[in-house]
Amino acid sequence: MALLFYSTADSAKVWIPELKRQLSHHDIRQWPDIGDASEIDYALMWKPEPGVMASLPNLKVIFSIGAGIDHLVKDPDMPRHLPLVRMVEEGLTAGMTEYVVMQTLYHHRRMLDYREQQAEQRWEPLPLTPCWDRKVGILGLGVLGRDAAEKLAMLGLDVAGWSRSEKRIDGVTCYHGDAGLDEILRRSEILVCLLPLTEQTRGILNADLFNRLPKGAMIINAARGEHLVDQDLLDALASGQIDSATLDVFHEEPLPGNHPFWSHPRIILTPHMASITVPRTAVASLVDNVQRFEAGQPMKNVVDLDRGY
Amino acid sequence: MALLFYSTADSAKVWIPELKRQLSHHDIRQWPDIGDASEIDYALMWKPEPGVMASLPNLKVIFSIGAGIDHLVKDPDMPRHLPLVRMVEEGLTAGMTEYVVMQTLYHHRRMLDYREQQAEQRWEPLPLTPCWDRKVGILGLGVLGRDAAEKLAMLGLDVAGWSRSEKRIDGVTCYHGDAGLDEILRRSEILVCLLPLTEQTRGILNADLFNRLPKGAMIINAARGEHLVDQDLLDALASGQIDSATLDVFHEEPLPGNHPFWSHPRIILTPHMASITVPRTAVASLVDNVQRFEAGQPMKNVVDLDRGY
Repeated sequence: MALLFYSTADSAKVWIPELKRQLSHHDIRQWPDIGDASEIDYALMWKPEPGVMASLPNLKVIFSIGAGIDHLVKDPDMPRHLPLVRMVEEGLTAGMTEYVVMQTLYHHRRMLDYREQQAEQRWEPLPLTPCWDRKVGILGLGVLGRDAAEKLAMLGLDVAGWSRSEKRIDGVTCYHGDAGLDEILRRSEILVCLLPLTEQTRGILNADLFNRLPKGAMIINAARGEHLVDQDLLDALASGQIDSATLDVFHEEPLPGNHPFWSHPRIILTPHMASITVPRTAVASLVDNVQRFEAGQPMKNVVDLDRGY
Repeated sequence: MALLFYSTADSAKVWIPELKRQLSHHDIRQWPDIGDASEIDYALMWKPEPGVMASLPNLKVIFSIGAGIDHLVKDPDMPRHLPLVRMVEEGLTAGMTEYVVMQTLYHHRRMLDYREQQAEQRWEPLPLTPCWDRKVGILGLGVLGRDAAEKLAMLGLDVAGWSRSEKRIDGVTCYHGDAGLDEILRRSEILVCLLPLTEQTRGILNADLFNRLPKGAMIINAARGEHLVDQDLLDALASGQIDSATLDVFHEEPLPGNHPFWSHPRIILTPHMASITVPRTAVASLVDNVQRFEAGQPMKNVVDLDRGY
């Protein structure tokens, strides 16, 4: 059995030895040196060129290197009859939770204001909102959203979450559906987007949504650039409806040099680094699914293509 | 029974009604309108002028508004025979944990470098250290240090703590004494100071300590300015032995305008805001101790003056 590793972003120098070590009975190949294409059973991929998946005639499972699968389904020739598995692994989850907790606390504790004070040599302690009075909302309660929500709740913040279908999480107020969206927006002083990118969620962070938040709300987008309508955020920051934002993802990456986000004083911009797949733990997760597949058992984290995640 | 509230820093407008509400059978007085000094049984204080405590002839208990009691014991006329109670309350603990978690993650995820990248419109994701490989050390395992250590461990970081006497905390490697200090310093890439200020800990963050840390370590001081030898930190930042630091406390507060910390690019400076006592929960903690005292039971969080905390 052969597995093809395809990624321009991730370091093959780390991935290939890890795959060979943990998947030692399999033949590990690296794009573009794939040998006989008909021998490839599994593909582990990040942003493959359109047509590559379709060029592997005996492909059995497509594994995404990232949590999202939008980089795969946008290939019109992706074989839709094959199981498609998104990446769920402890390193990716821990990294995203770190990022969300850090950025949420940074906005909660008004660190942008304090950094400005420091630059101006100004000493001015600001009123402190106790954690139990700070309302945080998480859009998306998949593996990443749930873990971030749990950790923020454990730090004492007043956390709510929203998902398409109904969920239950200890210590977190869970909303769902269209009516639930209204409720979570009305209460969220800090709103975190961890949604999958689907036709329903594209552009969800727009003027209408911003206006349904309390005035002066703070936004964290660590999902996909396409969730955000850039100009609507700039307008909401200008009006004060949104106080500040953290953005890790963008319509075009790297973000072009002339984009107004770069120099906006109320935007914290990071280069799509919120979380990355950690090879050791990611390959362990892959191996578990390969063993399940070869034993005829159901795999974990298989995408429902109709639902889009 | 009468209680005297004395603070120039905290808002009496919030404290006095909260004291009257939760301690309704007591007479609440506010400095300097104390009435008959001989009627004062309890004093709740922050940075009183020297001699004030000694001027209350029938004082029975001294309560600190803050976690530290250095602002009280530096009064040479403080009545040392009276019980002195440091503030332990959930608001203060939660605030400090928020601050320590936020600043630890900020250094862990190299946000100072990313903020510099943004200012230069540079897109350059940096290598990510998984949380389980990041070694954090907490100096001081009192109520604040323990809570911060537990929460950081729960986020998956590799956390150790150090205290004078032996402690045990689930998920945290605990060191103690002089030999233990050596061990925790050798491993800590991020070192957090939450020690009480005593004759033993004054100036503990000095060149000798910095040199025992791994090269490029990061420092967070949220305890007292007197723990740090300012010039030693500047030298260690200049040599690269210390990568960056977060400082919330200073020898003189507000920090004077000409101090080099203000404009140092590798120092995050906050105006002693890491945590503040929250009146509602603090008064609840005070009331519990007043009831214990009046019932002849031992109070909680009484300071051992020989030990210094």
